[in-house]
Amino acid sequence: MPVPGPGYAITVRVETPPSSSAAGDLTSAVGRVGGVITALDVVESHTDRVVIDITCNALSAEHVTDITSTLDALPDVAVRKVSDRTFLMHLGGKLEVRSKVALRNRDDLSRAYTPGVARICQAIAANPDDARRLTIKRNTVAVVTDGSAVLGLGNIGPGAALPVMEGKAALFKKFADVDAWPVCLDTQDTEEIIRTVELLAPVYGGINLEDIAAPRCFEIERRLREKLDIPVFHDDQHGTAIVVLGALRNALRVVGKDIGDCRVVVCGVGAAGSAIIRLLLRDKPGDVVAVDIDGIVHQEREGLGDHLQWIAEHTNAEQRTGSLHDALVGADVFIGVSAPNLFGAEQVATMADSAIVFALANPDPEVDPLEAQQHAAVVATGRSDYPNQINNVLAFPGFFRGMLDAQAHSITDSMLLAAADAIADVADGERLNASFIVPSVFDTTVAPAVAEAVRRAAEEG
Amino acid sequence: MPVPGPGYAITVRVETPPSSSAAGDLTSAVGRVGGVITALDVVESHTDRVVIDITCNALSAEHVTDITSTLDALPDVAVRKVSDRTFLMHLGGKLEVRSKVALRNRDDLSRAYTPGVARICQAIAANPDDARRLTIKRNTVAVVTDGSAVLGLGNIGPGAALPVMEGKAALFKKFADVDAWPVCLDTQDTEEIIRTVELLAPVYGGINLEDIAAPRCFEIERRLREKLDIPVFHDDQHGTAIVVLGALRNALRVVGKDIGDCRVVVCGVGAAGSAIIRLLLRDKPGDVVAVDIDGIVHQEREGLGDHLQWIAEHTNAEQRTGSLHDALVGADVFIGVSAPNLFGAEQVATMADSAIVFALANPDPEVDPLEAQQHAAVVATGRSDYPNQINNVLAFPGFFRGMLDAQAHSITDSMLLAAADAIADVADGERLNASFIVPSVFDTTVAPAVAEAVRRAAEEG
Repeated sequence: MPVPGPGYAITVRVETPPSSSAAGDLTSAVGRVGGVITALDVVESHTDRVVIDITCNALSAEHVTDITSTLDALPDVAVRKVSDRTFLMHLGGKLEVRSKVALRNRDDLSRAYTPGVARICQAIAANPDDARRLTIKRNTVAVVTDGSAVLGLGNIGPGAALPVMEGKAALFKKFADVDAWPVCLDTQDTEEIIRTVELLAPVYGGINLEDIAAPRCFEIERRLREKLDIPVFHDDQHGTAIVVLGALRNALRVVGKDIGDCRVVVCGVGAAGSAIIRLLLRDKPGDVVAVDIDGIVHQEREGLGDHLQWIAEHTNAEQRTGSLHDALVGADVFIGVSAPNLFGAEQVATMADSAIVFALANPDPEVDPLEAQQHAAVVATGRSDYPNQINNVLAFPGFFRGMLDAQAHSITDSMLLAAADAIADVADGERLNASFIVPSVFDTTVAPAVAEAVRRAAEEG
Repeated sequence: MPVPGPGYAITVRVETPPSSSAAGDLTSAVGRVGGVITALDVVESHTDRVVIDITCNALSAEHVTDITSTLDALPDVAVRKVSDRTFLMHLGGKLEVRSKVALRNRDDLSRAYTPGVARICQAIAANPDDARRLTIKRNTVAVVTDGSAVLGLGNIGPGAALPVMEGKAALFKKFADVDAWPVCLDTQDTEEIIRTVELLAPVYGGINLEDIAAPRCFEIERRLREKLDIPVFHDDQHGTAIVVLGALRNALRVVGKDIGDCRVVVCGVGAAGSAIIRLLLRDKPGDVVAVDIDGIVHQEREGLGDHLQWIAEHTNAEQRTGSLHDALVGADVFIGVSAPNLFGAEQVATMADSAIVFALANPDPEVDPLEAQQHAAVVATGRSDYPNQINNVLAFPGFFRGMLDAQAHSITDSMLLAAADAIADVADGERLNASFIVPSVFDTTVAPAVAEAVRRAAEEG
């Protein structure tokens, strides 16, 4: 059963006569209908009435109606206003563009703008690479989406995707001091997206593709990598693959297995699954078995497109066939980036001893993590309310910081693997255990460690 | 003769034995070759030597060489380092993207990013206009260029144009708290520019076209105005026209003439000149005479394109012909947005009594302002080193502030005229005189006054 979280926090302003039991009556009423109170503030106090702000977490719009009508039904209590803290936080947007240089007087203006700026323009015209030194290109990343695969919401379009891209940009700044800018494109045509990003590129030192539906995202990424002299990262692919690989290294340390001896089941072959498989193969696992909605991917399966054909040729050495449940039998590792509730404890029980289960479908994992824990040695999810949250924010800020610092022109597998190692190493050591295979998303040492590893890998070529 | 300005400020670090005359020797050496010293700092002092930073304004790269070699040639003086303050200011670029919301803990993250942000996305998907309330679209403007007509530098391309667009964005923020973002497009194809801006538009509440060559700029602006539901402003046209019209109103107040009795010569029919003519015609002047490199524009002139044909049909009631010098005879007002040094004092002498001369070619005006002053009652230029600087920064920040506040979908002439009035009114009153027809670019009351006037005009439709 879902629990109310801070993503849906409301503040209900009520008026009631002053009494010693007022506060208690209000909190117990909210509690009765399942609201989780996080604050209670008396904002006005008069001889005949008090005004109280009750802040609580709710589950849904219906739940909010339940809470407010329950309060309103209390004797002598009147609900004055309901405000939604998430909406309040978004008013006017989450980003601003600031000048890093002072413009106090005519002298400042003469340098930052005309006439002085003309010399900077001329320097870049004479030597285009100087843009990486003398402009925002030095530190700026485009967060590009077409709004076609946003969170779990699907194809909601570029305008509705903007709040997510703003949030992403805020995370870039907070964790790695990267200036990221939302580019929400009003087209879902592959050629138009490619051409538009190409035309925009002069301002940016890197491109972060985000929430673009598969398989379009693969072609966009591949073609842009050919065309541009700045790195092109697809967070849904590479960000996820980095964090999964980092977490897997530590999970294997916990159970004392070597990747070369392990059979790894990857469920889901969209953007994330494909990237995980490709990066994982660099680590020479015992075997990888890919599974999609039609079961195990193998070379005899009919109707494989180019994409699945590549996977069939590079995985499944024993040419297994069958369902996800068949794939799990004897497997050492399950990595799911697919759909909710695909199996239960009984399937986890069929896995090898000391099994590792990463059930990353969001918000509802492939297997209930509490059920998985009955038989698996290490369990991870994408959720913040269980241990071992696999979250891309561990990767992308530091990854771009490192690339910008190295003035990298492209991304290599060794940069991705270096980032995975860096994340694993932050959580390694005394703290490492089955419930702590990745650092917290708020661990501020992660991004600098990733940045340093990526910068070194980039400079080594 | 040009004077060294702060746009080319250098700091020369020299080492010299300590002596009572050291500082004097250094400053007089710099002065001999025409450098203007603005600071002299002793950064190290030892018994046998002192290290001194000499900051001075220079004219050009050759002038810097003159200054440093003159210093180096002084007995016992060694130049250690020369740094360019304009380049130093530009290192790493002039803008940053900041989060306006705190991301201190899991609760903040749950609201600004997943899972809470999903509700904001859904609200916008259900009601697209909510993007103007819940995202950066509320306050964000794209500064769009193709790098084809940058300052006086010409077609230097999008990367080299970026420092100017960054400076523009910094001015937007400083004067009107507008978040502006540089969009430097790697194409000079009209159709590609139009389509790209259309695809980018979801993120922005307004488009500011900048430094795009004529006549391409006219079609881009017109077509984008048809396609987009956000206002499209071309600063080289509308920004200039607003400030010129505002300044002209005050100049006419100073000389006590009515625009309806005046013949106005507009020299230059590119982006700025055309927009000035169109807006000026709304004020019903006595007559307007347009002049370009081929002389006076009139209906019998051969080879007029659509653009000049329109001007010929709407100006020059008396069908004058001839040169710029012919046009000036008896004219009340000259507005030049064309080329340097087209005429001198003797032509100004042929104008009507109490003539008004706006010589706005940059950096060298159509007529030397000191010569113009011999016969004209009011003289304005685009330069900061003469009175009456006509500078677009008086218009664009406040203009966009007003449009964003009104959530305007388009720009009307009445908004442009309201902005011109607002600028004129700030400089009107006791301060108004022949040397003060426009407020200073640092007058912080201008942008709010323009914003308020534009907002009202937008809301009145």
